[in-house]
Amino acid sequence: MSTYEDRLTALREELARRRLDGFVVPLTDEHMSEYVGAYAQRLAWLTGFQGSAGSAVVLPAEAAIFTDGRYTLQVREQVDGTHWSYEAVPQTSIAGWLSDHVGQGARIGYDPWLHTRGWVTAARDALADVGAELVAVEANPIDAIWADRPAPSAARLVVHPDALAGKPSAEKRQEVADWLVSKRADAAVLSALDSIAWTFNVRGADVDRTPVALAYALAHADGTADLFVAPDKLADDVAQHLGNAVRLHPRDAFAAHLAGLKGKRIAADPERAVAAIFAALEQAGAEVIEARDPVVLPKAIKNPAEIAGHRAAQLRDGAALTRFLHWLSIEAPKGALTELDAAARLQAFREETGLLRDLSFDTISGAGPNGAVVHYRVSEETNRRIERDTLFLVDSGGQYQDGTTDVTRTIAVGTPTAEMRDRFTRVLKGHVALARALFPQGTRGSQLDVLARQYLWAAGLDYAHGTGHGVGSYLAVHEGPQRIATFGGGDEPLRAGMLLSNEPGYYKTGEYGIRIENLVLVVARDVPGAEREMLGFETQTFAPIDRALIDTALLSPDERDWIDAYHAEVLARIGPQLDDEARAWLQAATACL
Amino acid sequence: MSTYEDRLTALREELARRRLDGFVVPLTDEHMSEYVGAYAQRLAWLTGFQGSAGSAVVLPAEAAIFTDGRYTLQVREQVDGTHWSYEAVPQTSIAGWLSDHVGQGARIGYDPWLHTRGWVTAARDALADVGAELVAVEANPIDAIWADRPAPSAARLVVHPDALAGKPSAEKRQEVADWLVSKRADAAVLSALDSIAWTFNVRGADVDRTPVALAYALAHADGTADLFVAPDKLADDVAQHLGNAVRLHPRDAFAAHLAGLKGKRIAADPERAVAAIFAALEQAGAEVIEARDPVVLPKAIKNPAEIAGHRAAQLRDGAALTRFLHWLSIEAPKGALTELDAAARLQAFREETGLLRDLSFDTISGAGPNGAVVHYRVSEETNRRIERDTLFLVDSGGQYQDGTTDVTRTIAVGTPTAEMRDRFTRVLKGHVALARALFPQGTRGSQLDVLARQYLWAAGLDYAHGTGHGVGSYLAVHEGPQRIATFGGGDEPLRAGMLLSNEPGYYKTGEYGIRIENLVLVVARDVPGAEREMLGFETQTFAPIDRALIDTALLSPDERDWIDAYHAEVLARIGPQLDDEARAWLQAATACL
Repeated sequence: MSTYEDRLTALREELARRRLDGFVVPLTDEHMSEYVGAYAQRLAWLTGFQGSAGSAVVLPAEAAIFTDGRYTLQVREQVDGTHWSYEAVPQTSIAGWLSDHVGQGARIGYDPWLHTRGWVTAARDALADVGAELVAVEANPIDAIWADRPAPSAARLVVHPDALAGKPSAEKRQEVADWLVSKRADAAVLSALDSIAWTFNVRGADVDRTPVALAYALAHADGTADLFVAPDKLADDVAQHLGNAVRLHPRDAFAAHLAGLKGKRIAADPERAVAAIFAALEQAGAEVIEARDPVVLPKAIKNPAEIAGHRAAQLRDGAALTRFLHWLSIEAPKGALTELDAAARLQAFREETGLLRDLSFDTISGAGPNGAVVHYRVSEETNRRIERDTLFLVDSGGQYQDGTTDVTRTIAVGTPTAEMRDRFTRVLKGHVALARALFPQGTRGSQLDVLARQYLWAAGLDYAHGTGHGVGSYLAVHEGPQRIATFGGGDEPLRAGMLLSNEPGYYKTGEYGIRIENLVLVVARDVPGAEREMLGFETQTFAPIDRALIDTALLSPDERDWIDAYHAEVLARIGPQLDDEARAWLQAATACL
Repeated sequence: MSTYEDRLTALREELARRRLDGFVVPLTDEHMSEYVGAYAQRLAWLTGFQGSAGSAVVLPAEAAIFTDGRYTLQVREQVDGTHWSYEAVPQTSIAGWLSDHVGQGARIGYDPWLHTRGWVTAARDALADVGAELVAVEANPIDAIWADRPAPSAARLVVHPDALAGKPSAEKRQEVADWLVSKRADAAVLSALDSIAWTFNVRGADVDRTPVALAYALAHADGTADLFVAPDKLADDVAQHLGNAVRLHPRDAFAAHLAGLKGKRIAADPERAVAAIFAALEQAGAEVIEARDPVVLPKAIKNPAEIAGHRAAQLRDGAALTRFLHWLSIEAPKGALTELDAAARLQAFREETGLLRDLSFDTISGAGPNGAVVHYRVSEETNRRIERDTLFLVDSGGQYQDGTTDVTRTIAVGTPTAEMRDRFTRVLKGHVALARALFPQGTRGSQLDVLARQYLWAAGLDYAHGTGHGVGSYLAVHEGPQRIATFGGGDEPLRAGMLLSNEPGYYKTGEYGIRIENLVLVVARDVPGAEREMLGFETQTFAPIDRALIDTALLSPDERDWIDAYHAEVLARIGPQLDDEARAWLQAATACL
């Protein structure tokens, strides 16, 4: 197996053959996916970096890897500093770094299938300022030197039953068609993998943790569609499910198909479709309409069948998590458990439901100081014992055919300190404030964010992440467009049927982390005497919140009532699924405060 | 005096002479001012409309007036429906209306000194879609037919003493110069009248309610400036104060001066400089840099002298308002007072301080249902008696040389209903939540807005205006860029030294209005154990909040404590300024709940 040093050398030789003076390596795929298939993990192959966000730039005598604050430590452990310099984003931008490190006349390559047009424009302008050129490559030079590069997954598509989807694909496509007619457009490009899976009521297994298949699609104004997917992935039942109105093409025929769209008005999403798609459409002589992928909003607003499915998944998942918390309450105080042990046992409880398809993300199992690493991913190297008198944070979720879950609990092992209880209670008060909020139609997630932070702010504390993200229906655990956060989204008005997380936290570096996460559904609320159409959240996640960490003196009567009522509902929904011993434990764990 | 019908006919004849098929009449001046001088009140002269926001379009056979929801009733009372059609913005845009009502080849005029470039682009595109043309006029056609049009005010400028300004003009100009150097720009256009007044430490009397003078300025990268102001307005002391580094020109020489800026890099603010300024710069061959007026942010962040001045103005103004509230408590129950009586008496109390320069806006004196009209302006026609068992809302402020005030109190005359007390207490709880908020550096006003709304939302209620606006230092009572609101601003991070209003409300159409408004200063807060730099608000306004309207059962202990502490401070600061009788009344009015 080649070393990372060999790989860097090979890439430089390949760039020289192509007369390129540099190359940009992002961590994404042709679909701007959050999780990417093994075939597309070029950044990890080249550098060894295992984080979920980052980029690299390779020049003839220099190479730099760009990561954000979450990965400051990890990148130094995983990527060899003798060959790579570490750069922090957003403090240093790739475009800015390039313009400082390349000379006049330099030709810097990029793969137009792996970047948005916005990125390309910014990088091109920055290079132009120093007389250098940004050059789109025909084929990715890493693929030329990556001898044992995995093939894209050959996993078969499966039909997502209409009973779970709640709406036949033909009806979803007709809604896209109506939207296209209103825009006087002929077709829309769908390149986001979850948009395609949702539109055609299919699921795949090409990407870890998200049940999607590698594909592209064009949805037409007449309700028909072209679906581009490797033919081997389509068993007869799926072809039959898709029907005659969906014309099938090999995935690698997509670019050539775009070239035939001369004179058509084609909608494409500048945040989701890569630069190569826009370039192909423009070169073809198509008229490009920049618009958000028309599937994004209907996918986010769950229909009754999706909501019913989600509820069923939550009951099952809550029982698995509660069994785990019961087991943990017995095993953790013995002092021998590790983070890996705990994550494995939790996964086993989920698997014992018989219906788990996958985890919805790598379990965050953080003991003591590891709990303060917001995007912690336990490995053999970082694995810690869960020690007495520490906090243990576990953020996990399951992919079930009827729904996707995501839940965080923070557990006191032994005796928590007064500070831990104070911080936990402030986080809980924020969680409850958001869970109880009533707000008028049209309210955006960004407006509500402060409700979850206010009690931390009152003590001069905060958390450096958003409060809530959208969640898919047996799809991506992080789904837009809605979000409860101040930056990076949050401008989308919340609508009944949207599913979000409610997950404030507090992190004390080197000591402990706290996060309390439930999923919540936006629902219409009938408020007596209301002068506005009001919305609120209905909590969907059921598992006990550690009473040992609650300082009841800090709670208002309303907050106490909310927690007691929530715990009563946890007992009523989860209790009947448990054996006697676990149920007895849950009874105590959900007793009134 | 001509009738409105005569004026409309005269305008149509003038347009025909100029071969124009229509003309757009906005309500603003060449400085995009909120309040405009009499010489610029073309919309009011043409239509009779007296509101603070609106526009009109005149075509050969049709004429339309565009107003927002605040003026739905008022526009129908003031503008003759036989000649004008009423259009609602934002539901109908001027550009949209024009494209529905003009034909191919039509030439629609606009005055480029009265519109932003953004407006011009949108209107031009909408007209182009129907084959019509938007045409900039050389001189406003209304001015040609407005026989008795007032001349622009000839009021003299006065020096705003450095002791109150807190910083000499030369130092302010040097800060602009430093900014220009960082932008590699030669000069910045200042066209907003309050920016000019603040930069040069002068005040004027050309516009009602805002002590500014009609002028333009260019601030240069060497710290010098060109100031364009009518020579008659400059007495010797002002010329001496301005000094040699400020070159004086007549105001009407501004456009010609811009024509001489070939090859210069000039910063101009697309929200504050009108289209004609951008056009003149581009025609001159200057390189235009679009950037926010560099004075806007330093003007918003008050310096210690401005803060001290504001505090002094507030003590004085709070005593005047408290004397009024005492007087009202005696007179109103007799049942004879009208809104006009009350407004006049309040103004008299302010004048009795001997230091009032002007009101900071037309007093909103709203009895019963008039209190529910958010931008109510009392007139002989609308004047109501203040009846028993109703609410009276009074929103007012003073311009003093040391500071600008803005305060709203809602008073129960007689016995309020339980609903009134419930609503008032919810508004008060929101006011207190905002007043007590702690938040980290970088927090934007839009994040805090929900704190003031949450208790109304909990009952399905809301108010259709922002929660807080910036306030000037003996300048505009509405000042950007900071704002506590979800739309139309609110994205500016709050910084220590910014002054804002805190004014949630509730309005029941046809019955009553409630608003509680204090001004608050953003201050650094030392929170023990804080992990972030924290900010908070320090309330600056001192006058009692009507205890008869507070339902103490709805208050938390913290809220009660805040109100009691606030009232104690009101008594301590205002009490010593009152006579015995008023002080005794204030003692009772500020007693603990």
